[in-house]
Amino acid sequence: MTENKRTEISTLGEFGLINHLTQDLTARNDSTIKGVGDDCAVLNYKKKVLVTSDLLTEGVHFDLIYTPLKHLGYKAAMVNFSDVYAMNGFPRQLIVSIALSKRFCVEDLEQLYDGLKLACEEHGVDLVGGDTSSSLTGLTLSLTCLGEAEEGRIVYRSGAKDTDLICVSGDLGAAYMGLQVLEREKAVYEQQVREHKTQVAFQPDFAGKEYLLERQLKPQARRDIVELLQQADILPTSMIDVSDGLSSELLHICKQSHVGCQVYEERIPLNYQTASMAEHFNMNVSTCALNGGDDYELLFTVSLSDYEKVKDIPQIRIIGRIQKEEYGCQLVTRDGNEFELKAQGWNPLQ
Amino acid sequence: MTENKRTEISTLGEFGLINHLTQDLTARNDSTIKGVGDDCAVLNYKKKVLVTSDLLTEGVHFDLIYTPLKHLGYKAAMVNFSDVYAMNGFPRQLIVSIALSKRFCVEDLEQLYDGLKLACEEHGVDLVGGDTSSSLTGLTLSLTCLGEAEEGRIVYRSGAKDTDLICVSGDLGAAYMGLQVLEREKAVYEQQVREHKTQVAFQPDFAGKEYLLERQLKPQARRDIVELLQQADILPTSMIDVSDGLSSELLHICKQSHVGCQVYEERIPLNYQTASMAEHFNMNVSTCALNGGDDYELLFTVSLSDYEKVKDIPQIRIIGRIQKEEYGCQLVTRDGNEFELKAQGWNPLQ
Repeated sequence: MTENKRTEISTLGEFGLINHLTQDLTARNDSTIKGVGDDCAVLNYKKKVLVTSDLLTEGVHFDLIYTPLKHLGYKAAMVNFSDVYAMNGFPRQLIVSIALSKRFCVEDLEQLYDGLKLACEEHGVDLVGGDTSSSLTGLTLSLTCLGEAEEGRIVYRSGAKDTDLICVSGDLGAAYMGLQVLEREKAVYEQQVREHKTQVAFQPDFAGKEYLLERQLKPQARRDIVELLQQADILPTSMIDVSDGLSSELLHICKQSHVGCQVYEERIPLNYQTASMAEHFNMNVSTCALNGGDDYELLFTVSLSDYEKVKDIPQIRIIGRIQKEEYGCQLVTRDGNEFELKAQGWNPLQ
Repeated sequence: MTENKRTEISTLGEFGLINHLTQDLTARNDSTIKGVGDDCAVLNYKKKVLVTSDLLTEGVHFDLIYTPLKHLGYKAAMVNFSDVYAMNGFPRQLIVSIALSKRFCVEDLEQLYDGLKLACEEHGVDLVGGDTSSSLTGLTLSLTCLGEAEEGRIVYRSGAKDTDLICVSGDLGAAYMGLQVLEREKAVYEQQVREHKTQVAFQPDFAGKEYLLERQLKPQARRDIVELLQQADILPTSMIDVSDGLSSELLHICKQSHVGCQVYEERIPLNYQTASMAEHFNMNVSTCALNGGDDYELLFTVSLSDYEKVKDIPQIRIIGRIQKEEYGCQLVTRDGNEFELKAQGWNPLQ
C-alpha cells in the first residue's frame, strides 16, 4: 500500500501498535474520563457510562466448523460483557453489526441472534442496535457494549499497589484445552473426508470433556463475581478479564500499575478435566493455564487489608502478590524456582 | 449452514431482515429509551447518550484502488458522526476496531488513523478506544460513535406530521457521480495494465470533477446544520442522514411517521458538476440525486409554522411536503407528472 518506508506490524506487536497509533491522543471533552488503554472507555454522564467494542472475523476469532452459530452469538456477547465486568460495572446495552457472505441464510442469522439474545437475557442487557451488510468472504461480527458503574467503584488496570493480593475467579486453562479437543476432532474429521473423498457420518468422542467444551463454546461472563465483591464490601485495586491468558493479563496490570508480581504455580486454579486432558496431550497444565486464554475469568488485586474478606469466598482464589516494580514479575514453581513471567498468550496479529 | 428450511436473505431485504431478527426485543432497563430502529440508540444517562455503530468491509463498502487510507479513515468517522447529527445531537467519542490482513503495514494504519484523527479534531470528538486484529482477507473497520443530546431536542425518524415541510441540506447526487468517475478511471487503468501486461504510469483526468471527488472521498458530516437549526430555534419533527439516497431515506421517515409525502423534482438541490457529469454519462441527474447515496446531508421535516424561520437559510432547501399516509409518497416531476417514490438506493445485501 505504501511505496516508501515499510515497517511490518509484527515488529511492534499488538499493544505496541495501538500505543504507537494512539499515543498523541488527548481528551477534548469533560465527559471523557478514560480513553484508550483499559477494558472500557469511561465517559462522564452522571452515572458513568462504560463502553467496549469487539470485532470478530471468521477463521481468526472463530471456526464455524465446530462453533454452532448460536454459540458464536452467545460467546461474542459474553466476551463483550466480560470487559464491562472487568471495570466493576454492569452491562446494559449491546449493539451488534454483522457482515456476511452469501453462503449464510436467514436461519443462520436467527441462530446467531438466538445466542445473542440468550446472553442478553441472562445478563439483563438490551440489544439496542446494529446493522447487517455483506462481506466478500465469511462472517464478521462487531459488538459494542455499554454499561454503567458508580463513579467511586470503577476499577482500572492501573491501581495495583505493592503488597496487594492477586486474585482470580473460577479456574483457568479449560477453554484452551476445549479448543485443543475441538481442533483434534476437526483434524480427524477432515482426514476421514479426504480418505473417503466424501462426507462421512462423524461421531466425535466428547465424553469426559464436557466441561472443557462448555468453557470454550459457552463461556460465562462473571457478573456473579462483581456482585460478590460488592456484597463483601471489597473494592479491587485493579481488575482485568482473562481473555488472552493469565500471564498476558497480569503483565498488563503490572505494566499499567508500575508494579511487579509473584504468582504461585501451586495456587493457580485448575479443573480436573483440564489437568487430565493436558496430560493426555502431553502438555504442561500450568502453561495452559498461564497462556491458554479464552477463560473470561476476572483477575484482580485487592489490598492486603482485605485478606480476611476475600480468603473464604469459594469462587475466588488468591494466587500471588504484587511487589515493587524493580523486583519484576515472576512465576514461583511448585519446586520453589522462579521464572520470569512472559506473555505467550494468543496474539491476534500473528 | 442449515440442513432444513432455507430462506434466502434477499427475500427479506436488509430492513426486513433486521425487523425479522429484532421484532421480539423489549427494553429491560429504564436507561433504554430507544433501541433498534433509528440512526442511534438513545440511552438515559442524565444527558442523553447517543450511540451508533458502522461495520465497513473491503470490496463492499470501500475500494482501496481509489480510496487512500487517510480518506477512508476520515470518511468512516464522518459517516459515523453523521448518524449522531441526524438525531440532532453532537458526537463526543469514537471507538474504532480494525481487522486487517498481512498485506497492510504500520504506515498504512498510520494513514488510516491520520484520517480518523483529522475527522475527530474537526468535530471535537475523542477517539476513546478500539483494537486491531487480523482478518484472513482484506480490511474491516468497525466504528462506534457516542454522542449527547438534550432530552427535549432529540429528533427521531418517526415524528413527521401531515403538512410538515421536507427540507434537505447541501446538494445531492455529487458523491454518486464522484464514484462513477472513480470507477471509470479504475476500469481504464485496469485495461491499460492488461494491455501492457505490466504496471503503467497512470494519469487520471479529474479536472472539473474536483467537487464530485471530494464529495465521494471526503464527505462532511453536517454539524453546521444542527447548529444552524439550534440558532434559528427550529426543532425538526423528524430527521435522518442521506446515506442510501434521498428516496430511501424519505421512505424511512414516512414509514416510521405513518405519513406520505410529495417531493418536487425541480426543488432537489444539485451542484453544477453533478448535472454536467450526469449528462456526460447519459444519466438522469434527478435519479442520481434520488438514489445515489453517500451524500451525508441531513434530511428533515419541520412544522409548517416554521416556514418563515427556515426559508432563508441558504444551506437548506425545502423540497416538498408531508401528506396523509393514504396519499402515498410521490415525486412530482418538472412537467407536473407524479411518480411513486421507490427506494432504489444502495443495498448492502445485494
